[in-house]
Amino acid sequence: MSVAELQSWTDGSTRSAIVDFVGRVTTEGGSDYVAPEARIAVFDNDGTLWCEKPMYIQLDFLLRRFKEQAEADPTLRDQQPYKAAYAGDLQWLGEAVAKHDKGDDSDFNVVVAAILKAHSEITVEEHAGRVNAFFAQAKHPTLGRPYTSCGYQPMVELLRYLEAYGFTCYIVSGGARDFMRPVTSALYRIPPERVVGSSVGLVYRDGHLYTTDQPEFLDDGPVKPARLWSRIGRRPILAAGNSNGDIEMLEFTDGLRLLILHDDADREFDYVAGAEKSLDQAKADGWTVVSMKNDWTTVFGG
Amino acid sequence: MSVAELQSWTDGSTRSAIVDFVGRVTTEGGSDYVAPEARIAVFDNDGTLWCEKPMYIQLDFLLRRFKEQAEADPTLRDQQPYKAAYAGDLQWLGEAVAKHDKGDDSDFNVVVAAILKAHSEITVEEHAGRVNAFFAQAKHPTLGRPYTSCGYQPMVELLRYLEAYGFTCYIVSGGARDFMRPVTSALYRIPPERVVGSSVGLVYRDGHLYTTDQPEFLDDGPVKPARLWSRIGRRPILAAGNSNGDIEMLEFTDGLRLLILHDDADREFDYVAGAEKSLDQAKADGWTVVSMKNDWTTVFGG
Repeated sequence: MSVAELQSWTDGSTRSAIVDFVGRVTTEGGSDYVAPEARIAVFDNDGTLWCEKPMYIQLDFLLRRFKEQAEADPTLRDQQPYKAAYAGDLQWLGEAVAKHDKGDDSDFNVVVAAILKAHSEITVEEHAGRVNAFFAQAKHPTLGRPYTSCGYQPMVELLRYLEAYGFTCYIVSGGARDFMRPVTSALYRIPPERVVGSSVGLVYRDGHLYTTDQPEFLDDGPVKPARLWSRIGRRPILAAGNSNGDIEMLEFTDGLRLLILHDDADREFDYVAGAEKSLDQAKADGWTVVSMKNDWTTVFGG
Repeated sequence: MSVAELQSWTDGSTRSAIVDFVGRVTTEGGSDYVAPEARIAVFDNDGTLWCEKPMYIQLDFLLRRFKEQAEADPTLRDQQPYKAAYAGDLQWLGEAVAKHDKGDDSDFNVVVAAILKAHSEITVEEHAGRVNAFFAQAKHPTLGRPYTSCGYQPMVELLRYLEAYGFTCYIVSGGARDFMRPVTSALYRIPPERVVGSSVGLVYRDGHLYTTDQPEFLDDGPVKPARLWSRIGRRPILAAGNSNGDIEMLEFTDGLRLLILHDDADREFDYVAGAEKSLDQAKADGWTVVSMKNDWTTVFGG
């Protein structure tokens, strides 16, 4: 595969950093050579492979479920967060998060409890069916495109480029493992077994696995390296993230570290909230910052 | 690949069951056809892929560690299980397990606590180094062969046979994930990312992952389907086990279920203890029982 295959990347220092790195680790006899089986690349999902604004795609999925629950059970319409979801009141939710950031978890804990209960006591297959039904019709609220078209074209090209050079690519995300798995093959050609994410406990009964409302792993921050080791058993040689929650995964990576900077208000969004520490560390430790505005010729392709 | 590649399997109904099943799921257009990405096969390890008698290979690894700890710290020599390990007293350990089976966990819990502490507070890389050092010199106590040659030749052939037909094979074992991973590539050509097993919690500090003495998962019985779903995200179409701890994994499998029967005192061991329920269920549900004595022309090859 030629360098030209990274065609949505502008011809500059960022693309050169990627191409140079891949060249070095794949040059047999070179001092940086890495055997194919150890060419592990890990990618955060929200804000790294697909759009996370104005809200996480998974949050849209959950709000629709809360509304559905409130429609089925009128008593829920007086309780948060079902009340807000039923009324389409995003302000209450925004305030719950704002209070959480200031150390007041009173409303936030109510949301978390509802999230854990939203899809509990169903089989893993039924859960996948609900996810597929959501993605079959849900659209991004401001971009207007289906969520299944909200992946970043340059990053998908990077996945293909790395695979062409013998890498194996994984998603390691704070998003729910079983929310991502049904669509990652179509979006990124990453199969379910290479999707690492947050999870609830599962229980086995009579030939089936059922979801519970018990949290198992929140795959974020220092948990990311532990979960990726659990799943892969190797230290990655390439990692990409975009926020403070990716710092430890990037530190744990022995090779190229990419940090996606959202600086493109015209084509996507422009924000650094939640990424401040990671941007500082990128500067201090020489991680490669990817400017969506300057390093990508297109964001969503098509 | 021809049927003849299963050359360590005798020409009988067991080999036919395997060959027929693989033929059906790989025949395009047939009613049982399964796409390659969904051809998942899962294998228990102890007693299914390698020898588990007279004691689990991992137990030998742990006893040597207890002895090493007692050599370094004389105060441990008066405490169990270090005392027994230091003296080479397998009887105390056998009695602890016998009492456990009768509902008395007083000694058993002492052993478990020591197991959890045996390799705590080291990096995952240092842990792998200890495992490699063990396998570089340890031998099976009665067979006389290195533990790395204690894999069953017919099962290794089965792994290759399945792979040739597009299957992806995983280990799903009650043994410790990070004890198996350093050697499964050499023994079975199964890489670390396809090894599922029991684990302790890991914590991240300053670019490294450290083991703890906190149990995380005991990958046995009903936990096996939950862990394999966590790792693979697909229901297997072939599973192989040999004990009661494999029942739920076999039930969860939608396809061919193999149960290895240890009935070969001459070439390996002859026992059903711990497998009684699984053998009953194999008979009731039509699982395929593999007789080591009758279905295999060789056990260890070479």
